[in-house]
Amino acid sequence: MSGLFITFEGIDGSGKSTQARLLAETLQGEGHDVVLTREPGGSPGAEEIRALVLEGDPERWSAKTEILLFTAARRDHLERVIDPALAEGKVVVCDRFADSTRMYQGLRAEGLREVVDQLHELMIGREPDLTFIIDMDPAKGHGRAKGRGGTEERFEDFGTDLQTRMRAGFLALARQFPDRCVVVDGDRDVASVAAEVAGIARARIG
Amino acid sequence: MSGLFITFEGIDGSGKSTQARLLAETLQGEGHDVVLTREPGGSPGAEEIRALVLEGDPERWSAKTEILLFTAARRDHLERVIDPALAEGKVVVCDRFADSTRMYQGLRAEGLREVVDQLHELMIGREPDLTFIIDMDPAKGHGRAKGRGGTEERFEDFGTDLQTRMRAGFLALARQFPDRCVVVDGDRDVASVAAEVAGIARARIG
Repeated sequence: MSGLFITFEGIDGSGKSTQARLLAETLQGEGHDVVLTREPGGSPGAEEIRALVLEGDPERWSAKTEILLFTAARRDHLERVIDPALAEGKVVVCDRFADSTRMYQGLRAEGLREVVDQLHELMIGREPDLTFIIDMDPAKGHGRAKGRGGTEERFEDFGTDLQTRMRAGFLALARQFPDRCVVVDGDRDVASVAAEVAGIARARIG
Repeated sequence: MSGLFITFEGIDGSGKSTQARLLAETLQGEGHDVVLTREPGGSPGAEEIRALVLEGDPERWSAKTEILLFTAARRDHLERVIDPALAEGKVVVCDRFADSTRMYQGLRAEGLREVVDQLHELMIGREPDLTFIIDMDPAKGHGRAKGRGGTEERFEDFGTDLQTRMRAGFLALARQFPDRCVVVDGDRDVASVAAEVAGIARARIG
């Protein structure tokens, strides 16, 4: 029996972390064996790499070095957490995965998206079975992320212009990978979004 | 004016670090602007990644994650130290570079050498102008490295069998890249090796 790999993607403040947690709780409550995890990080080694990338001067790593570090963290997370859980038939719910690297690093400069894709193919190779793209008006999403006042402001501080490009990027991604991507309107109350997400996930689990 | 990128490679205890330092001192004494550096590490960011890879349980990183981390460190080192120095016309002398990853990580398992090569082509792309492979009988080389009693025993503790495979690997590398690789017999007094190395480097600088 092989498990199901579900990821949540979207711009900062779209509510995807909340929705990932709620889906994990719902499926667990319905008797599924669920692993809730997140990126960057998700395994002890990957969390150390995450800290190395996100702490300190935002200019300390170039885009290409950052892509390599995130891919190293993803490789560790995949080998230590995701693949073993899927092999045991579990449902893995992951807040952010390779699509976030495609957007946040891949859109930093001309030609980087191609580098991200080639590196993913060479060193990771796994795509999710189901990806929820929680769609949100960037002005509202950005306001929410800033309102949290977290310490890792680095990727939350790009401003609305970048978030607008990211939103367009995520919607383009959904068109590029229609078999696994579902766009969900995140600009509703949390329970309504969660109900739609759970319904789609249940249908996929079968 | 473009500089010259010289690397030193060889098994542990071959004396390559000593020879890299001596060549840098000799060329500096002859009026060249020389940057002496080393891998893994060589820039502040790369040194942090080096520490992450080499400290702790030797089993903590898989071969593929380790290859990604070393490539991230190399990318940082290249962008922050090597490329800027070469652009200023300097001679860069580096103790270990991509060839060490080709050997130490690339030979860890079937198929990994190809992964190392593809990753290098995608994310690094630069080869040295001149590579000295300091050749040494593994039994002697291993004895020397152990005798240093360093704290980073991880890659020094593979035993003579592995060092024998590494030596064969480095000699094969020299045949694969004959334009840049020169094999130098390291099993002589330090001054004799240094004199041969300096002569070859001077001829290449022209």
